[in-house]
Amino acid sequence: MKPPVTIAITGAAGNIGYAIAFRIAAGDLFGPDQPVNLNLIEIEPALPALEGVVMELRDCAFPLLHDIVATADLDTGFGNTDYVFLIGSRPRTKGMERQDLLSANGAIFKPQGQAISANASKDVRVLVVGNPANTNALIALHNSPNLQPHQITSMMRLDHNRAISMLAEKIGKHSTSVKNITVWGNHSITQFPDLQHCTVDGEAAYSLIDQDWYKHEYMGRVQKRGAEIIEARGASSAASAASAAIDHMRDWVLGSPQDSWVSMGLCSAGDYNVEKDLMYSFPVNCKNGNYETITNLELNEFSQEMIALSEQELIKERDMVKDLLS
Amino acid sequence: MKPPVTIAITGAAGNIGYAIAFRIAAGDLFGPDQPVNLNLIEIEPALPALEGVVMELRDCAFPLLHDIVATADLDTGFGNTDYVFLIGSRPRTKGMERQDLLSANGAIFKPQGQAISANASKDVRVLVVGNPANTNALIALHNSPNLQPHQITSMMRLDHNRAISMLAEKIGKHSTSVKNITVWGNHSITQFPDLQHCTVDGEAAYSLIDQDWYKHEYMGRVQKRGAEIIEARGASSAASAASAAIDHMRDWVLGSPQDSWVSMGLCSAGDYNVEKDLMYSFPVNCKNGNYETITNLELNEFSQEMIALSEQELIKERDMVKDLLS
Repeated sequence: MKPPVTIAITGAAGNIGYAIAFRIAAGDLFGPDQPVNLNLIEIEPALPALEGVVMELRDCAFPLLHDIVATADLDTGFGNTDYVFLIGSRPRTKGMERQDLLSANGAIFKPQGQAISANASKDVRVLVVGNPANTNALIALHNSPNLQPHQITSMMRLDHNRAISMLAEKIGKHSTSVKNITVWGNHSITQFPDLQHCTVDGEAAYSLIDQDWYKHEYMGRVQKRGAEIIEARGASSAASAASAAIDHMRDWVLGSPQDSWVSMGLCSAGDYNVEKDLMYSFPVNCKNGNYETITNLELNEFSQEMIALSEQELIKERDMVKDLLS
Repeated sequence: MKPPVTIAITGAAGNIGYAIAFRIAAGDLFGPDQPVNLNLIEIEPALPALEGVVMELRDCAFPLLHDIVATADLDTGFGNTDYVFLIGSRPRTKGMERQDLLSANGAIFKPQGQAISANASKDVRVLVVGNPANTNALIALHNSPNLQPHQITSMMRLDHNRAISMLAEKIGKHSTSVKNITVWGNHSITQFPDLQHCTVDGEAAYSLIDQDWYKHEYMGRVQKRGAEIIEARGASSAASAASAAIDHMRDWVLGSPQDSWVSMGLCSAGDYNVEKDLMYSFPVNCKNGNYETITNLELNEFSQEMIALSEQELIKERDMVKDLLS
């Protein structure tokens, strides 16, 4: 058996945290040969509830689960962590302006970035799930001087999986038939689910659907799926968000299927004219523990417009938090 | 890839249902080569919430997940199912007598037993999780004329896992060091966590702990762990119950570790002087898709007393629902 890796989860007593902790402890992230330590991080008022999560984790007698740390102290929580899921964030409440939302989250992700930088393993991989995920990741990145930009990513995999599933359902195929979807940009309603290069069982998706459905039904439904879930469940996506977070981190570490690509929010290198150093979602291929942007796609005019639209939103978000960036 | 198996879950929009559905869809039950169909069953008022669960399951684009059925109709829900998790039950509410509780659950498990008998696959395996699990299983069994008694079991695995984990923690060992614990009897506070034959890294547990701790702290803590979780979380065990249900069904089908045994509620054959045909938890070994009671254990006087105590409770429960039994 390999030595355990240490995985930190913030917001660990929340609904996504509760869904992801047990799946990781069961081996869903790195498989049945990789023991794990869990560092569960919460804010002070949530520590009693977190203790209940710890008790339930112990009650599972998971063969792969070794140490559990439950803490509100960031230095302890991120100490020697190999993988970090930043899930806890300040949700938007009624009457809150976007500026307020971004500032409130800045107060969370700035100290978290600093604590990761000071305490985590040198090769730590960080996934930001808490919304607004791209800009939260940007704040964490700017406050992690010891990390390379590629070590911090933001989650678009839930959008990516939703885009796959909704297309598969429309065409009457299994989701595994769908390859090379990209969801570009911001994890917000400006995200762009792009079918230009997508295939379904080898056939071009463009030839299987009509553009009217694509542009006027499908795109909006992917973009607004979060609200649809809240409407149906009376609660926001939790298990599906946790599952997407596992997919993202697992593919990053163990590799993504080589006959397709996945969507990840990452620090832009300027590809596709997206402003450098924004946290933006691109199509990537994961291999040997790294991800590489797919850089050679020809984009039609519509795609270019949509990509620029989401970029503009992220530039605005960045400018609203500029006092938090180094 | 094998053809999909069909798995029914009742109470699928509840907290345990929500925790188990995603783990099964991710392959945690039967591994990465076994596709699954999910038949999610709920009462009518919970169907809108269940639709939200279905949406989230689709949003995961699980490679192993094929068809999803969401229904309140038992004949549809249990149609051709290979594995059934009966999770939904009527919880005890304030002022409710045990007799009322048993009758209310009889109204659930009698028609479920009938519908399974009439519609499920001939070799269906049923696990009752909803409380009072043993007696609910007995009611289902008596109303399933087409099933053999060994096809219906009740869950003691959560108690079993808790007993392992609490002993391991006390001794400072990993839970995988602990072998041959039994939790006998009823899934209630009369359950008997038995360390007489238990070993930890090959050493007799009896030699590692003192009897006073065993009888006056450990036993009570295992028996009342459910209440402790509710106190800490403000909600009853969900993810740990789901995990135990997966452990139970997986071991039943794929085999339990051959150097230890597990605890399962099953239809008594009269072993250890437990009245025949009660649903009672025994130590079992699972192999080739079947379970076999470990029948040759010598039991000391204390163990015999405890086993009889839980038996008496189950006889009383059975007698309270005798009009529901054939």
